[in-house]
Amino acid sequence: MPETKFKKTEDFNEWYNEIVELADLCDKRYPIKGMNVWRPYGWTLMSQVDRLTRDQMQKTDHQEVCFPLLIPESSFKKEEEHIEGFGSEVYWVTHAGLNKLEEKWLLRPTSETAMYPMFSLWIRSHTDLPLKTYQIVNTFRYETKQTRAFIRVREIHFFEAHTCHKNFKQAEKQIKEDKEIADRIFKKLSLPFIFSKRPEWDKFAGAYYTISLDVLMPSGRTLQLGSIHQYKDNFAKPYEIKYENPQGKHEYCHQTTYGMSERILGAIIGVHGDNKGLVLPPEVAPTQIVIIPIIFKGKEKPVNEKSKKILEQLVDENIRVKIDKREITPGNKFYEWELKGVPIRLEIGPRDIEKKQITIVRRDTGIKKLIQETELIKEIKKEFEEISKDLYDKAKKIIDEQMHRVNTIDDATKLKGIIELPWCGNESCAMEIEEILEGNTLGEPIQKEEVKEKCPICGKPSKTYMRYAKTY
Amino acid sequence: MPETKFKKTEDFNEWYNEIVELADLCDKRYPIKGMNVWRPYGWTLMSQVDRLTRDQMQKTDHQEVCFPLLIPESSFKKEEEHIEGFGSEVYWVTHAGLNKLEEKWLLRPTSETAMYPMFSLWIRSHTDLPLKTYQIVNTFRYETKQTRAFIRVREIHFFEAHTCHKNFKQAEKQIKEDKEIADRIFKKLSLPFIFSKRPEWDKFAGAYYTISLDVLMPSGRTLQLGSIHQYKDNFAKPYEIKYENPQGKHEYCHQTTYGMSERILGAIIGVHGDNKGLVLPPEVAPTQIVIIPIIFKGKEKPVNEKSKKILEQLVDENIRVKIDKREITPGNKFYEWELKGVPIRLEIGPRDIEKKQITIVRRDTGIKKLIQETELIKEIKKEFEEISKDLYDKAKKIIDEQMHRVNTIDDATKLKGIIELPWCGNESCAMEIEEILEGNTLGEPIQKEEVKEKCPICGKPSKTYMRYAKTY
Repeated sequence: MPETKFKKTEDFNEWYNEIVELADLCDKRYPIKGMNVWRPYGWTLMSQVDRLTRDQMQKTDHQEVCFPLLIPESSFKKEEEHIEGFGSEVYWVTHAGLNKLEEKWLLRPTSETAMYPMFSLWIRSHTDLPLKTYQIVNTFRYETKQTRAFIRVREIHFFEAHTCHKNFKQAEKQIKEDKEIADRIFKKLSLPFIFSKRPEWDKFAGAYYTISLDVLMPSGRTLQLGSIHQYKDNFAKPYEIKYENPQGKHEYCHQTTYGMSERILGAIIGVHGDNKGLVLPPEVAPTQIVIIPIIFKGKEKPVNEKSKKILEQLVDENIRVKIDKREITPGNKFYEWELKGVPIRLEIGPRDIEKKQITIVRRDTGIKKLIQETELIKEIKKEFEEISKDLYDKAKKIIDEQMHRVNTIDDATKLKGIIELPWCGNESCAMEIEEILEGNTLGEPIQKEEVKEKCPICGKPSKTYMRYAKTY
Repeated sequence: MPETKFKKTEDFNEWYNEIVELADLCDKRYPIKGMNVWRPYGWTLMSQVDRLTRDQMQKTDHQEVCFPLLIPESSFKKEEEHIEGFGSEVYWVTHAGLNKLEEKWLLRPTSETAMYPMFSLWIRSHTDLPLKTYQIVNTFRYETKQTRAFIRVREIHFFEAHTCHKNFKQAEKQIKEDKEIADRIFKKLSLPFIFSKRPEWDKFAGAYYTISLDVLMPSGRTLQLGSIHQYKDNFAKPYEIKYENPQGKHEYCHQTTYGMSERILGAIIGVHGDNKGLVLPPEVAPTQIVIIPIIFKGKEKPVNEKSKKILEQLVDENIRVKIDKREITPGNKFYEWELKGVPIRLEIGPRDIEKKQITIVRRDTGIKKLIQETELIKEIKKEFEEISKDLYDKAKKIIDEQMHRVNTIDDATKLKGIIELPWCGNESCAMEIEEILEGNTLGEPIQKEEVKEKCPICGKPSKTYMRYAKTY
């Protein structure tokens, strides 16, 4: 059976590009570089991730909205740090038909500056708080670095939650909830990740602080999948987002945001995939089970009937299932569905029917077993859980093996992956380490802890650990 | 109980604007005119319509894709009629950051010119056909006329299906399927509509012919909700969309599209609403049932418990249901949920519990009745069906009463609504009638029929009827 041309373990980048194309996730041949076409399989997978996100947001009383794509320059310019951070990365609409616009508009890189002028109209009283909203939309960044499907693109499928609160403490509670939501979402995707508090110079433009969510890709580089921001009243002041408290006094809101992008797909492909192709977590697989009828001449009817019966049983359980009836060899079907990462394959042949049994094959391990027909639903549910758990454990083991806490530069240079070193808190020391390790600062661990070791650069007492890694 | 300030029957336009705002559907105060903010209730309603559309598309083997928003000028300019039709209505991106783009890009007004260069790469052989795709995306038109929520906007929530076929006959089959899909969707929305074949001078830019879907609004104007286009090979030729037939010969594809927009919401509001607010078809109502506990002091516990039990029963049946536990009077709650168009209200009080009964109130008719608790699910399902049917019948009666077929201009001028007159086929005659009736041509009925009367303008034999109406 043919495998992919490139091996994940040998040439991760080429393997990644090949899988994206072979599994019909997206088409990179669109005439604008970095703006890719979502093909049906890729779009369905992304929609499943979105469904998972929506589900979590609804359960935590967030309401879905949809703001305009275009932002007037004057709205955008109200928060100074924000415009400095994004100004060189946005696309500008300057003309409508043949007319030059009076004021130019930009394509949202993120929606703070679209939403906050409206929030200032929506919020009047303390009874309007908390305001918890989110949207899932296309956003735009003018990337000058090399693009890569789902990982570095110019039109980005983006989730962004925006909340407003009475004070800093309430906003901090929201940050806590966001972290719990992230834990639940990425557990369902079997993706272990780490939270890091970004250093001052690398936080989101306008934020008070930024927490990033990073996964470790098999290339040894980290990939940032999302971030959670505490804004304090940094945006509320220029955008005049105020409420009247019970005493009749007007106060500024404190705000948070939580963002994630299509990079989640990049992580699913990269972390779980293998040389045969995608390996999808059952939670988001567009097709969770494929049924392959093993047909012998003269035995078509009972096999097809049984396959249909099994399909109906699974559909009744809300399982996403397909029968592959095409007139090609079972081997070719196996190859294709393995490439597409379908978590479970069922094989149904005439002998199985006689024995009232079904062959079940796991995509992640390749392990084949026979189960009794009467046990099907119970077994499938158990397998789904085990696949999710095993995928998670496998990925967790890798990130655990590649996360190192050391005290000296010497030790650090011998290691790969994510490296934690004591840090005094000075930017210059972190910058020096970045250069030595040829990596980037990820940020500090979010759990406070006492650090006894000295900063390996300046020798002063350390305030915390700083993480370094090669990043996407 | 307060009603809306404006009456639907007295001042439809003002009533419409008021409802859109009071029911929290969208916010028109965004700083770019005609680009509105979808508020949670409006967005959920739109998402329900999208779900209905996706469901119908999946059942007819269409695959969902998502193409980039931006289109290079060179792709856009390939089909001459198309650029002529849209050239003055598009927004142009000319700069990225501080750099001027080498080639300017436009924001899609519709996606032919984004998709077809890719289709020419995707389609190789007759076995790749039919290609049936669709997407639900934001599109942009530079409207210079007065904007109106959902009806005339500059960022449009848009559904577009694009298909490729072997020949004209296969494409015609698709048009037939599209008409059936439209029938099913609008039946579920209780919206009667008419298909009209647009005259030559009013068809979609680049199309061979265009069929429009129009509803009649209470203002007496028609509102176009969608259109189905036969493109023949008009786009396939400039975009080189070819396939190899079984004989090894390369032939051009024949294409169709089917589009619908957020105007569907405008029709739902306008056609079904009344002086109390929205009246939503159960199929798409964000909340289908609201439970109002009627609390008396000391009786809170049994009423709250019963309400929760009823909620759970309904949730198990996949009904979208809410309990309104707020500490305001039941009257205020009734008012608010009526404004929001929730199809059914359940009232649960201590006396009802004793008698094991529930009060059920229909939003559309206001009719109140008592049902046995054991009959609840059966009754609800029956009521949903009856509400849908009654809403449809009521709207159908109005369109039937306001559709007139007459033979003379004299008769036509005395009538309002949609007027059918015999037509010779000449543009100049239709134009003259447009002027006399102060209306627009909608198009011909799609069923062929013999017309014996003469054209009322030139007196020549008529080929068909032409429809005229005031339009949005």
